[in-house]
Amino acid sequence: MTDRDKQSSTQSGLLGRRALLRASTLGIAGGFLLPTQAAETLPLWSTHSGSAQSEYGGRSAFVSDRRQTNFGNPFGPQAGVSYTPLATLNGTITPNSLHFERHHSGIPAIDPNVHSLTIYGDVKRALRFSVDDLRAYPLESHCYFLECSGNSFLNTLASAQDLSVQAIHGLLSGAEWTGVPLRYLLDEAGVDSSARWIVAEGADASGHSRSLPIDMARDKVMVALYQNGEVLRPAQGYPMRLFVPGSEGNVSVKWLHKIKVQQTPAYSREETSKYTDLLKNGKAEMFSFAMQVKSVITSPSGTMSLKRRGVYEISGLAWSGAGSIRGVEVSADGGQSWVAATMQSSGGDRALTRFRIPWHWQGHSAVLQSRATDSAGNIQPSRTLALEKYSAAGFYHYNGIQSWAVDSQGQVKNVFV
Amino acid sequence: MTDRDKQSSTQSGLLGRRALLRASTLGIAGGFLLPTQAAETLPLWSTHSGSAQSEYGGRSAFVSDRRQTNFGNPFGPQAGVSYTPLATLNGTITPNSLHFERHHSGIPAIDPNVHSLTIYGDVKRALRFSVDDLRAYPLESHCYFLECSGNSFLNTLASAQDLSVQAIHGLLSGAEWTGVPLRYLLDEAGVDSSARWIVAEGADASGHSRSLPIDMARDKVMVALYQNGEVLRPAQGYPMRLFVPGSEGNVSVKWLHKIKVQQTPAYSREETSKYTDLLKNGKAEMFSFAMQVKSVITSPSGTMSLKRRGVYEISGLAWSGAGSIRGVEVSADGGQSWVAATMQSSGGDRALTRFRIPWHWQGHSAVLQSRATDSAGNIQPSRTLALEKYSAAGFYHYNGIQSWAVDSQGQVKNVFV
Repeated sequence: MTDRDKQSSTQSGLLGRRALLRASTLGIAGGFLLPTQAAETLPLWSTHSGSAQSEYGGRSAFVSDRRQTNFGNPFGPQAGVSYTPLATLNGTITPNSLHFERHHSGIPAIDPNVHSLTIYGDVKRALRFSVDDLRAYPLESHCYFLECSGNSFLNTLASAQDLSVQAIHGLLSGAEWTGVPLRYLLDEAGVDSSARWIVAEGADASGHSRSLPIDMARDKVMVALYQNGEVLRPAQGYPMRLFVPGSEGNVSVKWLHKIKVQQTPAYSREETSKYTDLLKNGKAEMFSFAMQVKSVITSPSGTMSLKRRGVYEISGLAWSGAGSIRGVEVSADGGQSWVAATMQSSGGDRALTRFRIPWHWQGHSAVLQSRATDSAGNIQPSRTLALEKYSAAGFYHYNGIQSWAVDSQGQVKNVFV
Repeated sequence: MTDRDKQSSTQSGLLGRRALLRASTLGIAGGFLLPTQAAETLPLWSTHSGSAQSEYGGRSAFVSDRRQTNFGNPFGPQAGVSYTPLATLNGTITPNSLHFERHHSGIPAIDPNVHSLTIYGDVKRALRFSVDDLRAYPLESHCYFLECSGNSFLNTLASAQDLSVQAIHGLLSGAEWTGVPLRYLLDEAGVDSSARWIVAEGADASGHSRSLPIDMARDKVMVALYQNGEVLRPAQGYPMRLFVPGSEGNVSVKWLHKIKVQQTPAYSREETSKYTDLLKNGKAEMFSFAMQVKSVITSPSGTMSLKRRGVYEISGLAWSGAGSIRGVEVSADGGQSWVAATMQSSGGDRALTRFRIPWHWQGHSAVLQSRATDSAGNIQPSRTLALEKYSAAGFYHYNGIQSWAVDSQGQVKNVFV
């Protein structure tokens, strides 16, 4: 072990990479058996044939992970959200049935044979595309995160809510998105040289619309048709959505129906009355698309309870709208010392990265934190630092370090340190 | 355009990478509009709020992709298979509800609170692990393909069946798998120096069991707990399965219940009467785990019909049990000329890779083929070459090049060339 590993191992319980290589000493196994105990009576399900294969599979009756929904919006249940159950998931892919939702006027039931995308405005020729048209274009597939700009806003409040990682940070999901690079469609329409913005509008009843600078629209933006291998789900924009990698979720306009090319932004309702960032000086930042470098420990996390002393895996997600994740450090002593976590499924541009590190909990109170650094060199700030820039009334784009306190009974709780 | 691109473009219709950069000239858009046509009456679903968010999402009523199931097994429906709908999926992830299945005695309904994994035999101490025990170990996440050893066997028959890519090649899926590296558990049990094999056994009624050399078991093998982010589905081994990256699917024992460490293989039913490869000289190869370098065009593919002349995207999957995919070439003239396809989600060790290339179909008959090369330098063989090694009665591990004939009416059909 390096001196640093040894120190963190003995003090905060974090086990560095060298310790990980000697996992034989972790001693997690529940019970040692005498050789004669290895033989056992057959479990019930080994005594008879099980159910047959099926056309469309489901989950075990013992599994009930679900999105937490919030029907509290005064404008009706359709203007609400649902949160991904981050604590019970692992890896970097969010199953489509559990991807977070944020709708402004519910989920439209669109007939894909009627739906189309029209590109018009300052172009040489206005074009209309059916779903079949778009499928004939060169497609691309990439793993990307999607995060609502209001994700984690509960931690901008004055006092720490005793809630789960799902309730605080669950407006975050990861998927493999497949679609047509938007630049192909813009090129075919022939954008006028004076045009500087596109305005994308959805076919939902709210007519949700957002403006994007044309250079950004030509960069990594796609018209997505598939999510995690299958065609989009209705809740994610079926049959087509804009996908703007790394940007706040509301820019990735669902049920994409129109793209108008023009010289100015639309200054639509969603980018003036909402989705702006109120600063301390009373001004508001507009078009602040990119989500910032961020990470969160998903286990152990809020409302969980450690049932025994011993080794646990600390595991979480990291992401950045500015690029890929270069590294994540974890602290088990409230930020006094940090140890580099192991990374998996990392290196993807604007993708979720899973980080992990073993931790030996000896029954003492502890504060668990994670701190991500992205490929552009941005480091996730403390809560205090993250709040400094914005007005107390602002709550978008919050990316402060999450602190989970573990008490001597093993109870895990959201705290501000 | 390079001379090669130009040649392939004018002759077989394949459009190389330079053509792809000028996608503006593809001219796929269904219709040009007069500027005044861009305005339109609101579609029905834009006139009223849609449905609210939900705890667990579903698909559009217009989407009905399903696994094709085969209940033809004389031993009952539980000893059958289901095939992934490769033609309608895109990207590299297979949604868990559509992952292929192959069961020997149906899907057991396992209570995870009772189920355990026992490691015993030639070890210093036999150990038993609950699901919770395993979750405390250092986990890893990787995208891997899984392919049944009998996948594509229909193309080893004497005549070409007029079937879909699903029916011929659908015992293939891709997922992000998360689990405990098996070496941690073996190290903790303390493997005797004389031990050379492990024998893994499932908790299903067939007691499905396979032997693995211990060096292989220590390499990339994991006890998988999660698939595409969520805990395993029952059809994929809930609550735990062995996962042996790159190997024929039946080695990745589902509902993993016991691992016995010993000096010899078990020579179990499944590795003697089945899952051996009969050679021309009458001998049979045993323990031929690795699936070979392979690719298949998923669109256009068998039983599809091209409804118009013009540009299409040829798209497919490539994979290899020997490493990652280095490249895929596509031919539209039955193998006379080849053009390098564009790759996405590539570079993953033993993962599915998506390849793509635009193709201009001018209404002539054509034969579409793909040929993969892996990181070890293995090149996917022709059908004739692939069949040479094995007895006519053998049908496992077939990896010959797939040929899809397109006739002048646009009908696509499986052919042997």
